[in-house]
Amino acid sequence: MSTDTPDDPDSTASTNDQRARQQLLELAAQFYDQFADGDVPSMSVPTRSKSNIEYDPEKGVWVLGDRNTTRSANSVGGAQKLLKAIYVIEFLADQLDQDRSSTLRELYYLSESWDLDAAQFNSQDESNQLVEDLEIVADVTREDFHMRPEESGATVIGPLFLREQTRRGEREIHCQEDVGEGGYQIPNNPDTIEFLDHDAEFVLAVETGGMRDRLVENGFDEDRDAIVVHLKGQPARATRRITKRLHDELDLPVVVFTDGDPWSYRIYGSVAYGSIKSAHLSEYLATPQADFVGIQPEDIVEYDLPTDPLSDSDVNALESELEDPRFQSEYWTEQIELQLDIGKKAEQQALASRGLDFVTDTYLPERLDAMGVL
Amino acid sequence: MSTDTPDDPDSTASTNDQRARQQLLELAAQFYDQFADGDVPSMSVPTRSKSNIEYDPEKGVWVLGDRNTTRSANSVGGAQKLLKAIYVIEFLADQLDQDRSSTLRELYYLSESWDLDAAQFNSQDESNQLVEDLEIVADVTREDFHMRPEESGATVIGPLFLREQTRRGEREIHCQEDVGEGGYQIPNNPDTIEFLDHDAEFVLAVETGGMRDRLVENGFDEDRDAIVVHLKGQPARATRRITKRLHDELDLPVVVFTDGDPWSYRIYGSVAYGSIKSAHLSEYLATPQADFVGIQPEDIVEYDLPTDPLSDSDVNALESELEDPRFQSEYWTEQIELQLDIGKKAEQQALASRGLDFVTDTYLPERLDAMGVL
Repeated sequence: MSTDTPDDPDSTASTNDQRARQQLLELAAQFYDQFADGDVPSMSVPTRSKSNIEYDPEKGVWVLGDRNTTRSANSVGGAQKLLKAIYVIEFLADQLDQDRSSTLRELYYLSESWDLDAAQFNSQDESNQLVEDLEIVADVTREDFHMRPEESGATVIGPLFLREQTRRGEREIHCQEDVGEGGYQIPNNPDTIEFLDHDAEFVLAVETGGMRDRLVENGFDEDRDAIVVHLKGQPARATRRITKRLHDELDLPVVVFTDGDPWSYRIYGSVAYGSIKSAHLSEYLATPQADFVGIQPEDIVEYDLPTDPLSDSDVNALESELEDPRFQSEYWTEQIELQLDIGKKAEQQALASRGLDFVTDTYLPERLDAMGVL
Repeated sequence: MSTDTPDDPDSTASTNDQRARQQLLELAAQFYDQFADGDVPSMSVPTRSKSNIEYDPEKGVWVLGDRNTTRSANSVGGAQKLLKAIYVIEFLADQLDQDRSSTLRELYYLSESWDLDAAQFNSQDESNQLVEDLEIVADVTREDFHMRPEESGATVIGPLFLREQTRRGEREIHCQEDVGEGGYQIPNNPDTIEFLDHDAEFVLAVETGGMRDRLVENGFDEDRDAIVVHLKGQPARATRRITKRLHDELDLPVVVFTDGDPWSYRIYGSVAYGSIKSAHLSEYLATPQADFVGIQPEDIVEYDLPTDPLSDSDVNALESELEDPRFQSEYWTEQIELQLDIGKKAEQQALASRGLDFVTDTYLPERLDAMGVL
């Protein structure tokens, strides 16, 4: 039993808000100064094309490279981009001031209410990209701007006691004793959570709902002192963030349990190394210490699991993973080559072919023991 | 403030289990008797093709018609079907006996462990269909067999106090005071819930997560005494079931709030009238008294909402809804014809173009007042 005690989350949250607001206003002030000095206003942002995203072997995550793109008012297109940025900065600063929040989609629609037609967005891609630009330039996260994702629905169950700062006041919740079988719903911004106490030995992040429910029914979280995080397929930012915080703040090993196919290895990759799309946030979202439990291609052979044949797109995805810097270890090369060789893939729930308790009585204990987690 | 007090949920649950198990065993006994009498074993199930599904205008839901299909052991194919049914009956009876549960996908994989190759399923469609057959023939629900869906992740927030019977004991949860901003996660089988108390005036079922979060942030559930159910797109059975129970047991009006396009009208339809796929369960899942809030085609015009043009498949879907018995009212005919006429659709979140509070301060109060709910 151990616990980390960060500062009072209330003051932390508002400090974050103040800092985010301040950074935005400084950006606006920069445009003002450029005008005042007779310069053409401009804003420089790191280029976010694939060619400017690098794998940092030391940190073990994706990071942005050194190249920058300048948005300058010396063209009509550039001037419009800056105009839209200023409208968004004003909207976000007000939102933070009023302690409100909104979704990316609402921001896109809200622009229709702006008085200047030229400031309105033509597509949600455009407004999403501008918010990402502002994240990078202001060096804060979208969550700090109080921008919410559409939804995620991911959950946590396990021996974890936490306090969530909600708009309706604080809620103290034990993620086994105070929740139903569905577990604790991860909020859009998990930085509103403070971890109060726990009895956990490790964090088990699970891809599918069927397997998450199996582990809960079999009492795996209780018997093995595991915090079970349901990834729900490719995990949302909030899910990756809470996983990282469980690792960093509670010093818990994190293991990732997915189907045995190339798309699921990418799910593991996004938990561990970050994604190309959010490379500017890898240090906020990625858990490079996270390990892969399986389903490993060698498990398909060893446990004689029911399989499906690899499709052409599976084979292509595996071959591109062989080139992917995140999978350049001996372990992954072996596993991926084995899978290409046997030409098969298997789902987590295929373990049920050995009985409903096989995953919790045999498979996970064997794998976690081999990995040094149990 | 009112509350329904059903029987002790513990005894109810086990009575249900006992009844489900009994019905299954009777089915097996019927095969035995057929053998003993020198008859060829057979099982008769209502035909579930589209032509045998009827809209019952009195009940206001889809129901199965009178035609039956007989699965008989007088052909190899028929005999195999009955063999598989017997294996599944044995598995389900054991599962109920041991108070365990499993997913449809696990059942499919489990069949690989059965001693007789001929009893194994060739596809999950086959095992899913057999479970549906058994639901109908045994006159119980899949939930009574303890078969779980893959996942749903739908949530409830509002002035509702409930008790959930979990495998870890009872949990009493107030769906505002005891949950985070994510709300209360609906369990796979909401019949494990007993409603203890509430302060609600109505139930608002919402399609998208973005709108659900907007209502929660704006405090709509608190200000208007609303139980907000997040449908998460096409709602899972558990979501439809809890919605029906909130209506039937707490006598609360149910209103459904979706995007303004033909696919969302179908979401409303599945809450209110049931779906073709689960026509045999309409009386368990459907809430014929549920009303549609919007986005109505006339709202698009009246509130001048941002829109997208109808695609060809949107137009086809609207035209098929004009023929759909569920939408044969004056109201729906008018709305659908208006939408075909203007050639536009709008999302819930498009209301943000009038400001973030417009939906809770203006749109919903106006609509709910017109509908007689507020």
